[in-house]
Amino acid sequence: MSIVLQAPAYIRAISPYIPGKPITELARQMGIPVEKIVKLASNENPLGMSPKARKAVEAALAGVERYPDQFDLIAALAERHGVATGQVVLGNGSNDVLDLAARVFLAPGRSAVFSRHAFAVYPLASMAAGAECIVAPAKHYGHDPAAMLAAIRPDTRIVWIANPNNPTGNFLPQAELRAFIDKIPADIAVVLDEAYTEYLAPADRADTVAWIKDLPNLIVTRTFSKIYGLAGLRIGYAVARADVADLLNRVRQPFNVNNLALAGALAALDDHGFVAESFELNRRGMEQIVAGLKRLGLEHIPSHGNFVTFEVKDGAAVNGKLLQQGVIVRPIGGYGLPNHLRVTIGLETENARFLEALEKSL
Amino acid sequence: MSIVLQAPAYIRAISPYIPGKPITELARQMGIPVEKIVKLASNENPLGMSPKARKAVEAALAGVERYPDQFDLIAALAERHGVATGQVVLGNGSNDVLDLAARVFLAPGRSAVFSRHAFAVYPLASMAAGAECIVAPAKHYGHDPAAMLAAIRPDTRIVWIANPNNPTGNFLPQAELRAFIDKIPADIAVVLDEAYTEYLAPADRADTVAWIKDLPNLIVTRTFSKIYGLAGLRIGYAVARADVADLLNRVRQPFNVNNLALAGALAALDDHGFVAESFELNRRGMEQIVAGLKRLGLEHIPSHGNFVTFEVKDGAAVNGKLLQQGVIVRPIGGYGLPNHLRVTIGLETENARFLEALEKSL
Repeated sequence: MSIVLQAPAYIRAISPYIPGKPITELARQMGIPVEKIVKLASNENPLGMSPKARKAVEAALAGVERYPDQFDLIAALAERHGVATGQVVLGNGSNDVLDLAARVFLAPGRSAVFSRHAFAVYPLASMAAGAECIVAPAKHYGHDPAAMLAAIRPDTRIVWIANPNNPTGNFLPQAELRAFIDKIPADIAVVLDEAYTEYLAPADRADTVAWIKDLPNLIVTRTFSKIYGLAGLRIGYAVARADVADLLNRVRQPFNVNNLALAGALAALDDHGFVAESFELNRRGMEQIVAGLKRLGLEHIPSHGNFVTFEVKDGAAVNGKLLQQGVIVRPIGGYGLPNHLRVTIGLETENARFLEALEKSL
Repeated sequence: MSIVLQAPAYIRAISPYIPGKPITELARQMGIPVEKIVKLASNENPLGMSPKARKAVEAALAGVERYPDQFDLIAALAERHGVATGQVVLGNGSNDVLDLAARVFLAPGRSAVFSRHAFAVYPLASMAAGAECIVAPAKHYGHDPAAMLAAIRPDTRIVWIANPNNPTGNFLPQAELRAFIDKIPADIAVVLDEAYTEYLAPADRADTVAWIKDLPNLIVTRTFSKIYGLAGLRIGYAVARADVADLLNRVRQPFNVNNLALAGALAALDDHGFVAESFELNRRGMEQIVAGLKRLGLEHIPSHGNFVTFEVKDGAAVNGKLLQQGVIVRPIGGYGLPNHLRVTIGLETENARFLEALEKSL
């Protein structure tokens, strides 16, 4: 028998993730100079990385031949969240901690529940662990707690919740979210993915990590890839009860986070000025893009992240025309939204360039 | 039921990997200043990183807010090995590609075969995938092909081979290795871990990647953590047949390698001067340490890597005395070698400092 057929059927059934098109790829494919390309496809921070993080990374370069030590960053995150160090699990991006949760709680014969239009890594991580994916219907493109609760089966072991959700930008307010999680049976892990939480209006923010005391099945995940501007360094983390964190650490690769990411994240965590500037730039850019979309007569899904998803007649066709003009946004047909495109909020000039190109593409 | 008990028994049975003690940890624990500590515990390159890699990493810092693009490094590795780009799979260290292989070919109800005293990640990755571990007896501390072949069962899906092996330094010569792999049934994946291959004497090196043409079940893995000096950046790779590489990519996290590692590895690959210098330093340092061990009347296992494992009466006790003197080596009781210690070949001064401290510890 071919070696390929030795992989379980659930592995062979996985379709790899389709990332936002890198600038370098578009440059290669279309012969457009890199500096003429605007990429608003991967919810990256248009301000770049935190300057404090950059300084720390440069200093850490001196020890790059050494395997990394996670001690300092774990201590800082534990202090930040008011938890024990044993409750923090670092990941190679938050993708990694999502994957660890899947490996710990899922397996063939088990299932995971998530919402339609939710983040693509939930099905990927669930399938790679051999579990069945149960997709609950969405409400106004967002998570529908009632539908997700109804989708839970006896073999369900993880409920994935993104708040705000990518790629739709929907958000469940604190009270509604808590009521939802309270109704999930305590023997099912709840992975609450808060990659975009720093973009929430202050009034909308909730200290969900504090909920872990009452909810031993809750795993909260965060990332440094968005407002902290460290997507390329790959670092995120989970906070959970110590015994759950211990399980995640058993399947974690011992050196899963590189030492430049550790140094950069530690410094970025205290760069409050950069975070505030990024937040404000995003708020203004969101107004700019939403106003532009309205001017063009396009519907959009109100977003609580650093991106907005809008409706066009044919996502693939409009995307193709944008690419020809050197503007990269994200087609989201793979998320069940073939008539929508997702655009990241960029710098004012990038947003303007996108709106101009979009107008020509319609 | 407690959420912890929802994790499959095979996950709860995993003991986490015990890494070499970081310099910063010993400094914290014993109050020894960092600059007085010699770490020869993790087979890191004592020369640091390749200078060409450092320059490339510094340049890549400008784009760290962007998600990484693996295109250039995959192209360079494919060219280097004379294979198609679709045959190269990048990992967050070679640990990551070992883990991908386990996830693709192992599962509950399957087993993996490896040698006693082999690299600790083989049991960890196998167990995390739910497979049973079959440990074949070693011969002179090294892989015994006959014993490993005899250990194969109908449910075996991976045979893990480290060549040279860590932590023993043993090596199977080309003809013996090929004869061994030829006897492994073609429907069992053979993962050939060559993390230390660059330290082999030129006459001992084999182009095992070329064997993939005849051996569709062969996966060769390499790392940038050793002779290239990039352990802290986390990058390694696998070469396999395209259809096998495709399976590995299905469980690979889309952004598993950070963009500084990609840039650094691409440059390091061409830094032949640095590799030659590192090789020569290791050759001389190995002579220095082996001579020192002999002078102290200690037996060692002849090593083909950048480390050497030697016998003391009580590994834990001697290790404790070395730590008190600020010298970190690797206790390997977890590898079934409680009376041995493994020391990495360092700079001449570090090797001397180690030998001096060892003499006092005996």
